[in-house]
Amino acid sequence: MPGPKNSKWFLDYLTPEEGHMHGINSILYSKKTPFQQMEIMQTGSYGRCLVLDYKMQSSEVDEFIYHEVLVHPAMLMHPEPKKVYIVGGGEGATLREALRHKSVERAVMVDIDEEVVMMSKELLPEYHAGAFDDPRTELKFLDARRDLEETDEKFDVIIIDISEPVEEGPAYLLYTREFYEMINDRLTDEGAIALQAGTTAVGKLLNLTAVHKTLQEVFPHVVSMPAAIPSFGLPWGFALASKKNDPRAFTAAQIDEMIARRVNGELKYYDGECHLHSMTTPKHIRKAIEAQTLIIEDNAPIFTYN
Amino acid sequence: MPGPKNSKWFLDYLTPEEGHMHGINSILYSKKTPFQQMEIMQTGSYGRCLVLDYKMQSSEVDEFIYHEVLVHPAMLMHPEPKKVYIVGGGEGATLREALRHKSVERAVMVDIDEEVVMMSKELLPEYHAGAFDDPRTELKFLDARRDLEETDEKFDVIIIDISEPVEEGPAYLLYTREFYEMINDRLTDEGAIALQAGTTAVGKLLNLTAVHKTLQEVFPHVVSMPAAIPSFGLPWGFALASKKNDPRAFTAAQIDEMIARRVNGELKYYDGECHLHSMTTPKHIRKAIEAQTLIIEDNAPIFTYN
Amino acid sequence: MPGPKNSKWFLDYLTPEEGHMHGINSILYSKKTPFQQMEIMQTGSYGRCLVLDYKMQSSEVDEFIYHEVLVHPAMLMHPEPKKVYIVGGGEGATLREALRHKSVERAVMVDIDEEVVMMSKELLPEYHAGAFDDPRTELKFLDARRDLEETDEKFDVIIIDISEPVEEGPAYLLYTREFYEMINDRLTDEGAIALQAGTTAVGKLLNLTAVHKTLQEVFPHVVSMPAAIPSFGLPWGFALASKKNDPRAFTAAQIDEMIARRVNGELKYYDGECHLHSMTTPKHIRKAIEAQTLIIEDNAPIFTYN
Amino acid sequence: MPGPKNSKWFLDYLTPEEGHMHGINSILYSKKTPFQQMEIMQTGSYGRCLVLDYKMQSSEVDEFIYHEVLVHPAMLMHPEPKKVYIVGGGEGATLREALRHKSVERAVMVDIDEEVVMMSKELLPEYHAGAFDDPRTELKFLDARRDLEETDEKFDVIIIDISEPVEEGPAYLLYTREFYEMINDRLTDEGAIALQAGTTAVGKLLNLTAVHKTLQEVFPHVVSMPAAIPSFGLPWGFALASKKNDPRAFTAAQIDEMIARRVNGELKYYDGECHLHSMTTPKHIRKAIEAQTLIIEDNAPIFTYN
Repeated sequence: MPGPKNSKWFLDYLTPEEGHMHGINSILYSKKTPFQQMEIMQTGSYGRCLVLDYKMQSSEVDEFIYHEVLVHPAMLMHPEPKKVYIVGGGEGATLREALRHKSVERAVMVDIDEEVVMMSKELLPEYHAGAFDDPRTELKFLDARRDLEETDEKFDVIIIDISEPVEEGPAYLLYTREFYEMINDRLTDEGAIALQAGTTAVGKLLNLTAVHKTLQEVFPHVVSMPAAIPSFGLPWGFALASKKNDPRAFTAAQIDEMIARRVNGELKYYDGECHLHSMTTPKHIRKAIEAQTLIIEDNAPIFTYN
Repeated sequence: MPGPKNSKWFLDYLTPEEGHMHGINSILYSKKTPFQQMEIMQTGSYGRCLVLDYKMQSSEVDEFIYHEVLVHPAMLMHPEPKKVYIVGGGEGATLREALRHKSVERAVMVDIDEEVVMMSKELLPEYHAGAFDDPRTELKFLDARRDLEETDEKFDVIIIDISEPVEEGPAYLLYTREFYEMINDRLTDEGAIALQAGTTAVGKLLNLTAVHKTLQEVFPHVVSMPAAIPSFGLPWGFALASKKNDPRAFTAAQIDEMIARRVNGELKYYDGECHLHSMTTPKHIRKAIEAQTLIIEDNAPIFTYN
Repeated sequence: MPGPKNSKWFLDYLTPEEGHMHGINSILYSKKTPFQQMEIMQTGSYGRCLVLDYKMQSSEVDEFIYHEVLVHPAMLMHPEPKKVYIVGGGEGATLREALRHKSVERAVMVDIDEEVVMMSKELLPEYHAGAFDDPRTELKFLDARRDLEETDEKFDVIIIDISEPVEEGPAYLLYTREFYEMINDRLTDEGAIALQAGTTAVGKLLNLTAVHKTLQEVFPHVVSMPAAIPSFGLPWGFALASKKNDPRAFTAAQIDEMIARRVNGELKYYDGECHLHSMTTPKHIRKAIEAQTLIIEDNAPIFTYN
Repeated sequence: MPGPKNSKWFLDYLTPEEGHMHGINSILYSKKTPFQQMEIMQTGSYGRCLVLDYKMQSSEVDEFIYHEVLVHPAMLMHPEPKKVYIVGGGEGATLREALRHKSVERAVMVDIDEEVVMMSKELLPEYHAGAFDDPRTELKFLDARRDLEETDEKFDVIIIDISEPVEEGPAYLLYTREFYEMINDRLTDEGAIALQAGTTAVGKLLNLTAVHKTLQEVFPHVVSMPAAIPSFGLPWGFALASKKNDPRAFTAAQIDEMIARRVNGELKYYDGECHLHSMTTPKHIRKAIEAQTLIIEDNAPIFTYN
């Protein structure tokens, strides 16, 4: 039978009945921060990985998929995004992708967990690629919801790059209607937002569908974009919401042209054809979204993994 | 931390450095057939599953994705498929989907492993749903390659539903240029074929890209269709090859119309929008296909998992 | 590297940081009884195994060690045990060993969980070996503590064969000083008792040492007997307490003579030399027992696994 | 159910159907030396552990058991051991125990793998406790069998502290009759040797029983001493062979007196009572030794784990 070639394993329990196993070559960091359990491991299949609260957050090998699909569709919905706000995004890779857009003049990144950012800066240099030192970057270690509540500043794009809503974790109040309404208020007229919305696996669509429906309470255009992040062990989805432009209205050629004109360097995952792939969804996922009636609210949050 | 709620686990090693864990509720069958190790398990997340040579083949919860994307695009490439040939397909679900097409008059299914078919018939009734007893079905337990070599019959669609090419397994000579040439010869002029082509995970694209390139040696139209089968633990791909019609030329509306007219019952995964999703591929996968130069041949087969 | 030859595993978590893995060939039974989760599995290394609340209870291959060391030393402490009481002992193997003593006229077995006994009777015939049908056997499905409280009958030997004290499990009030005092009252003058007392692993001796000290509050002679039950994954200990005879006073020859005279059939684990092995303990375990000050009481129970 | 509190695990496959799981806190070293795969891990239950060829060799928490039972019985068989030879023993803990004997004037340690010794010296200071720097120590990095063949020197005690005989490992020719004969020739008249002899688990006694029988071909007194090393996941055995004194002839009081007079510091595992425990063996193990007919020879070696 096919056998393992490693004796050290990270067991990532996706649900109480399912997990993904990663061979571990070395553990570069493992510590409880004030907010969560943080680990950086070198794995056999995915290179250096960030693990928060025992769950894979991103891997050297496939983080480009996660960060490109999270950042670029939202950025392209705005004709000329100058000010970007990032909620979370500790590894710095979301910031890295946002800063590739030539129009960006200011990128505010607010992560509650300074230790995650500092250790990522030191141990995951390929992830941030110097983005923390970009003169356009402002980095703050705060509760992003409070930070946004207290500011009058408006942003063209807001990217929410946070872990899943778990009961004791720092993220679950960043998935509610009230939060999205406040986000909407901080966006300029052609603004857009994006976030990871959980797995698209059959029967595990609660998070994605409820986020989709909750966003529809606030934004005129909402799309759930499927994307395969192999290291996650399950298929994944990202939500894109836009105040003015409909993401589904763009052709592949238009997307390719905008990327060529507006983005520095070459993208690896996302382009015009991939945009069409991201805008189209298998039938059962669309049906599940349509059937969902739950709206996530501050006093009725949802929690994954139970 | 999120903890397991099961103490019995199926460890599906995807590579020597990666695996997927399924909580086991019960084991309905576990035996070495003359060709492979066969198991049918009831899992916590995916219901009843078929496992061959220690690898997940299909699960009650998401087999509809696998079998719909494998069968329907190929069937729709032909204007009126009357004769269908299935290589492998032991569970009977590929046969089930093919028989939904009203035009089908004859469906030949040839699986080398009678025990897999017989046990699936008994223990996986939701998979075949009576397809083995359909009067249009002819079931044979043979090496399909030899069976096709020895016949003069032509088919409109040939579906290859076999496990991955592993060194001691029964399948690796069904992935070669010589086999595809023979298949091509057994197809009618507007014929099409489809097969599962392995994972699309970053860095693990050898199988999919080599199959794609090998098919292009034989067929004018070849598409690699990404699809997420959650129980597989890695993102997956399917190859579609067609003698006459270009799969990418169809609109969503055309596909929806054809399904409505030609297919009995309601599909769960595949429709017009899903067709567009299947015809479009992330950039890095397309680049990997373009970069692949390997052609699989009888005397130069490839093996996954090593 | 040495690799597994099974893909189905029972993960027996011994502590939150340690576990033992058993290859599973088949699962014969898996159900929640009114008292606990019960499973009977066929494993690759240990044959048919009984698993309660996700923890190995006994295995076909090495249950003889567990049941011989639990039963025979206690039986031999009494010169002619006629009446035996068994607390728990669901598989029937403790009963089987007790009934091998020719002097026994009456054996009362009281297990709270009828389903465990009934399924063991059906699926573990090698364990009970007909003991349930012995005319000397009386089988009751009750809380043994209440049953003993309500009876005036006296017994020569009482064997406590129960699972470890876990917070929600049925057993933790059967490990307290009050229970042992009541047991003592139900014993005849030369009576003895035995029980499994948990692991002897370094640093995990709380259960064994506290049981030992608690028994010493009640009985004049208390011995902790180490024994290796391979399927348990950790070294184990058994407590023997006696009202009159000192277990350490017997020579190997005396034990061999008593076994030959008093016990039917041939023992596999226990004999005179093994008695000496059981009466002697590594230094660090004796030191840990001496250092223990905790007495287990009804209102101050202990729980393992935390 | 009892759940894990770690997501990083060392899976120590004991056989193809059985394993032991250790929660990993950190990996201090992981590298392929010229002779074997070497790892030093900090585990949740056992502190810092040495792992060679994917198998637990010794742990900070229970290495005292392994090294005391390996060294002291053999040392005490000789009335005044001055010259000691250690085969293997990379961590330095066997050397540490040998040097506690006041009579020792010279201790030669010969390990084939310099990297294991050097990394243990750096990362496992509690194991060697300065033994490598003792002026009585001579350390050589050679094949011990060749080293012993080429010397005329005689030793009072020879300790063989090597890993199990695996097919590609460095150790299997150090378990044969020819090797033991040569060892015997290098011993003084009252000399003794000791070695670890593999698990004593039911049905897995091939190694221990064959070693026992092979030693009996060469030495007049051979004893197999059971000992529980919890981190090993299975019960273990050690072989003691002596040219003149019978290990079983000593009383507990004699052993305690010799330890008090001859050994520096306080032992944790081994004393007079533990000696009796080590000299007595459960019946089924003795029966298995008696039934064994295999003699291990250079041209008929044995391999564990297959």
